[in-house]
Amino acid sequence: MLASTKLERRAQDSGQQMYDLVSELYPICRSITGNGVRETLRRIARNIPLQIREVTSGTRVFDWTVPREWNIRDAWVKDSSGARVIDFQRSNLHVVSYSVPVHRKMTLSELRPHLHTLPDRPDWIPYRTSYYQQTWGFCLAHRDLERLRDDEYEVCIDATLEDGYLSYGELFIPGHTSEEVLISCHVCHPSLANDNLSGVAVAVALAQALQETPGRYSYRFLFIPGTIGAITWLALNERLANRIRHGLVLAGLGDGAPLSYKKSRRGDAEIDRVAQHVLRHISESTVIKDFSPYGYDERQFCSPGFNLPVGRLSRAPHGEFPEYHTSADNLDFVSAASLAESLFACRQILEVLEENGYYISLNPNCEPQLGKRGLYTAIGGSVDSGKCEMAMLWMLNLADGRHSLLDIAERSGLRFQSIFEAASLLVSHGLLQKELPSNDIGPVPQV
Amino acid sequence: MLASTKLERRAQDSGQQMYDLVSELYPICRSITGNGVRETLRRIARNIPLQIREVTSGTRVFDWTVPREWNIRDAWVKDSSGARVIDFQRSNLHVVSYSVPVHRKMTLSELRPHLHTLPDRPDWIPYRTSYYQQTWGFCLAHRDLERLRDDEYEVCIDATLEDGYLSYGELFIPGHTSEEVLISCHVCHPSLANDNLSGVAVAVALAQALQETPGRYSYRFLFIPGTIGAITWLALNERLANRIRHGLVLAGLGDGAPLSYKKSRRGDAEIDRVAQHVLRHISESTVIKDFSPYGYDERQFCSPGFNLPVGRLSRAPHGEFPEYHTSADNLDFVSAASLAESLFACRQILEVLEENGYYISLNPNCEPQLGKRGLYTAIGGSVDSGKCEMAMLWMLNLADGRHSLLDIAERSGLRFQSIFEAASLLVSHGLLQKELPSNDIGPVPQV
Amino acid sequence: MLASTKLERRAQDSGQQMYDLVSELYPICRSITGNGVRETLRRIARNIPLQIREVTSGTRVFDWTVPREWNIRDAWVKDSSGARVIDFQRSNLHVVSYSVPVHRKMTLSELRPHLHTLPDRPDWIPYRTSYYQQTWGFCLAHRDLERLRDDEYEVCIDATLEDGYLSYGELFIPGHTSEEVLISCHVCHPSLANDNLSGVAVAVALAQALQETPGRYSYRFLFIPGTIGAITWLALNERLANRIRHGLVLAGLGDGAPLSYKKSRRGDAEIDRVAQHVLRHISESTVIKDFSPYGYDERQFCSPGFNLPVGRLSRAPHGEFPEYHTSADNLDFVSAASLAESLFACRQILEVLEENGYYISLNPNCEPQLGKRGLYTAIGGSVDSGKCEMAMLWMLNLADGRHSLLDIAERSGLRFQSIFEAASLLVSHGLLQKELPSNDIGPVPQV
Repeated sequence: MLASTKLERRAQDSGQQMYDLVSELYPICRSITGNGVRETLRRIARNIPLQIREVTSGTRVFDWTVPREWNIRDAWVKDSSGARVIDFQRSNLHVVSYSVPVHRKMTLSELRPHLHTLPDRPDWIPYRTSYYQQTWGFCLAHRDLERLRDDEYEVCIDATLEDGYLSYGELFIPGHTSEEVLISCHVCHPSLANDNLSGVAVAVALAQALQETPGRYSYRFLFIPGTIGAITWLALNERLANRIRHGLVLAGLGDGAPLSYKKSRRGDAEIDRVAQHVLRHISESTVIKDFSPYGYDERQFCSPGFNLPVGRLSRAPHGEFPEYHTSADNLDFVSAASLAESLFACRQILEVLEENGYYISLNPNCEPQLGKRGLYTAIGGSVDSGKCEMAMLWMLNLADGRHSLLDIAERSGLRFQSIFEAASLLVSHGLLQKELPSNDIGPVPQV
Repeated sequence: MLASTKLERRAQDSGQQMYDLVSELYPICRSITGNGVRETLRRIARNIPLQIREVTSGTRVFDWTVPREWNIRDAWVKDSSGARVIDFQRSNLHVVSYSVPVHRKMTLSELRPHLHTLPDRPDWIPYRTSYYQQTWGFCLAHRDLERLRDDEYEVCIDATLEDGYLSYGELFIPGHTSEEVLISCHVCHPSLANDNLSGVAVAVALAQALQETPGRYSYRFLFIPGTIGAITWLALNERLANRIRHGLVLAGLGDGAPLSYKKSRRGDAEIDRVAQHVLRHISESTVIKDFSPYGYDERQFCSPGFNLPVGRLSRAPHGEFPEYHTSADNLDFVSAASLAESLFACRQILEVLEENGYYISLNPNCEPQLGKRGLYTAIGGSVDSGKCEMAMLWMLNLADGRHSLLDIAERSGLRFQSIFEAASLLVSHGLLQKELPSNDIGPVPQV
Repeated sequence: MLASTKLERRAQDSGQQMYDLVSELYPICRSITGNGVRETLRRIARNIPLQIREVTSGTRVFDWTVPREWNIRDAWVKDSSGARVIDFQRSNLHVVSYSVPVHRKMTLSELRPHLHTLPDRPDWIPYRTSYYQQTWGFCLAHRDLERLRDDEYEVCIDATLEDGYLSYGELFIPGHTSEEVLISCHVCHPSLANDNLSGVAVAVALAQALQETPGRYSYRFLFIPGTIGAITWLALNERLANRIRHGLVLAGLGDGAPLSYKKSRRGDAEIDRVAQHVLRHISESTVIKDFSPYGYDERQFCSPGFNLPVGRLSRAPHGEFPEYHTSADNLDFVSAASLAESLFACRQILEVLEENGYYISLNPNCEPQLGKRGLYTAIGGSVDSGKCEMAMLWMLNLADGRHSLLDIAERSGLRFQSIFEAASLLVSHGLLQKELPSNDIGPVPQV
């Protein structure tokens, strides 16, 4: 049953819990492999019964190969006085992710090509990676770079890049059917709060909520390294992908911008229509964007060989806010309130997916007499029939088995919830009958 | 043959006649059954050869039952001095329609729950009904309610609610085919001029005009009580409904607002496209509205079991003008000029329906030589070829049997009449041939 | 290979050559038949290997008949002093084209009905024709008409209208397939520069360019008299018309207005979509117009029996600029720069047609790893991936054999050239495969 107000209240309660989880995970140095991801998954598993999977380095996954595992203990640049002018202990963003180990002395001009800054944002440390090209580097505030004198520097990245594993987390919540909804977020970024601890926290809260009562759909949550994680999961679970009826990538859900939804490659999938409906009724400032093959793991889920109906829920557009991929994407950049609203939107979307269906009027010839059933204003002639009566009239008029509840909500301009409540009321009065979904693909499989 | 100017003149002549009919019918106390409706139908039958039908109370019509017949002789509320403070003889709106008989004395506080007013419009009497809930009540101006002192009142509604009949009128005008156009209006409102004596008057004038020359379509006019009348007719004539190719509900056609057309549930039926074309060419201020399941009898004709291509022609939107369902919807609220324009629009819509068809060019390869047939400016090279030549060129270019005249009018931006005249001219020169409609359903049936 | 910058430079070089050809042809007195057309075709044939065809007067071509051949040697009106007050030698526009011979004396009032002027543009001579009605006439500046006194005038049109031929030019450039692109322009106007020596000059330059390297399509150029020429060609080549996959009528391409494209009757033909794409990327001020059955020879190519995918490229809209069909459409009204831009647009359109095709990703499951192939920025994490990367990502995402390069360009908002270059790069790295077009209709026929 839909109970949006209750939902909204609970979502707000969850806001602080989500913010706390973001704060807890923030200091960990994550990358696409290694102990940072493992530790992150372990902490998530304290909240939900996550399965942690490990895939061996060298495993072929479509056009890619699972890389060697990267782990880092410490890294620094010391000047000739021995002072750490760049120190991994102060921020894990200081080291280019997947840097190969290095330990030697060099001049500033030798070091310079390995240093990355943001001249336009001189106080922020950029976030850089080099997963597939063997190199090393440091990131620092441009202001700090400008302070470096000509000197002999001792450079150390105490890291290992060795055969090991790619780790990811998976949670399957069985529903009444084996049709699946996929919820995916990435867990490969180090101390960046919005990108994507916000997505992780919303996914955890969503999983907690969904575990309480099984629904029509089964739900599969993925906490995976970006790109290579999605590719690995798809390569190892190619058959499972056929069960995915709807999906959402969760990313960038804690900042202060309005909610935005990026459509799947299909553009007219049910998830696309549902997300648009929900966001439009949350606020006029929400944003709907067409698919493009740039962004997060929707790139993989929507590659032409899969073409899954997977969209993305975000707030500030990917890559278009200045804090993106910098040290300014910190705990001040995200808020409990934004996380709560994001969770609320997710839950609304899932509820519409759960309840959207087709109904048949059992009195299709002319309107049924609502009055004798106590469903209609007794004294006729007045203008206002009320929203609920309009929802009933729309429902009865379009309950021909060819219009889904969402179709009816869209055509009437009413909220899905109003239409769903009207449908439920009419069913309880014997005026409508719900059609069984014909696209069920059988009982819930063993996973 | 289309002759719009002639039509327009005749429609204006008819304006006064329609206004006179509204005035004649205005004083009669109508309801969904009873002698008021019967008398109204009898007077309509003086103008057109109407069949008056009577359906017994208790007849099951789909989910409904034909109600008992209601008749009223008198009604009043007298104060202790014996003065009629509310008097049915002054306005039949004073009594809630279908009030059960009552005759007793009571205090003001006992009476008060039975009194209906419009506090926002203190001089107007509201119109209220209670067809399916056994109660009684009076309607009065709010100013008059405020004048009532604490007193003992004698309340009398001298009415009967007994087994009888539901009465409606039907006129069938046979055409060359058994395909039907349905024209429906309601006859159940007491002294309300726009809602819906305006519709009644336009329907009568339209029927008079159509009787003169049979057309391609047969026409069926219904003068019926709202809701229960439409449901009754549909229930008793379920098979006939299959013959309805197009239909119009006429309601609220005498006020000063621009013409508006409400689309059928289908939204893209021929009647929908034709009405839009005609209204757009009448004036830019005309309004096209999407179907909604609230309004007049289009609710029944467009219920999912029938889904007939029936739209509604009106002026001020249903329920959205303050005079709606009040004593202010009187003879001053409607005008001969508005009725005339409404009739003109109806006739144009029917003419487009009658003449809309498919043509085949007999010279489809390149343009035929219009010049040698005297159809083209002799001296070439000048810019203006004139509207008529453009209409001929469009007609020839799209006369491929897949574009109706309406399609060609819409694509060219020209009026249907221009395209139809060009088509007729080209047929007479042997350049086009009209395709026989393939959807004829046989000879005109006995009714 | 597309190389738009190179194209643009070459087009500009061609601008002056095109202007020179317009200047060379300008003095010749052309009509729909006769030596003026023949001489024009002969001069065109010095630039490209044109076949000159002659069709006998009296030949039936669909609803029309090839007219008698008209030739004029001299024409004048002399006043009683023997002075030539109207003199064909000064402008061939002075004589109504296809005037029958005349030589006699008459008063001004007898002469007056045969004189055509433009009172609104008193200094300009209008251009008038009377191909199919046997009459004669003179055109002159209105200011000159006002100077004519009452006098006896000697009127002479030394012309012949006799059985002969209709002449037109045709050039077929074979390509790899027998699918054809039709390029058509009219050669029947006397001293008018924009209408249509501009089209002739652009067609010649285009033919010269296309002869250099054979493409996927075969190209057929027609230099024909307007209307009767197109009708004659279609009547004599009805079977060839089936091979036409795309076509352009070139007219009015030398003036200073922005480029405009008029869609084919189909409205959504590939040529329509390609021309829109190219024009939109040339400038925002370019204009796209829907088909209408008025204009140049697209009227015939798009008649319902043929319905060919032939649009029209122009600048100022046909008939909507004051200089149209007057002596002001002279060599000052056209410019080398405008001709060059028109040629550039034509070449771009043809290049898109040539290269537009369907591709299949050879790694459809997830994105292929561009980095290991050197196709992707090595250091990840920065925002800008560059246009080229976006083009590759779009190409890979939509290379499912159901999206043409043009579809992908339109959906991505990128230029066709960027998408084509990305496709070529990806093909060369073994990531894409081009699908063979399935609509080829066989080897190049003998013509």
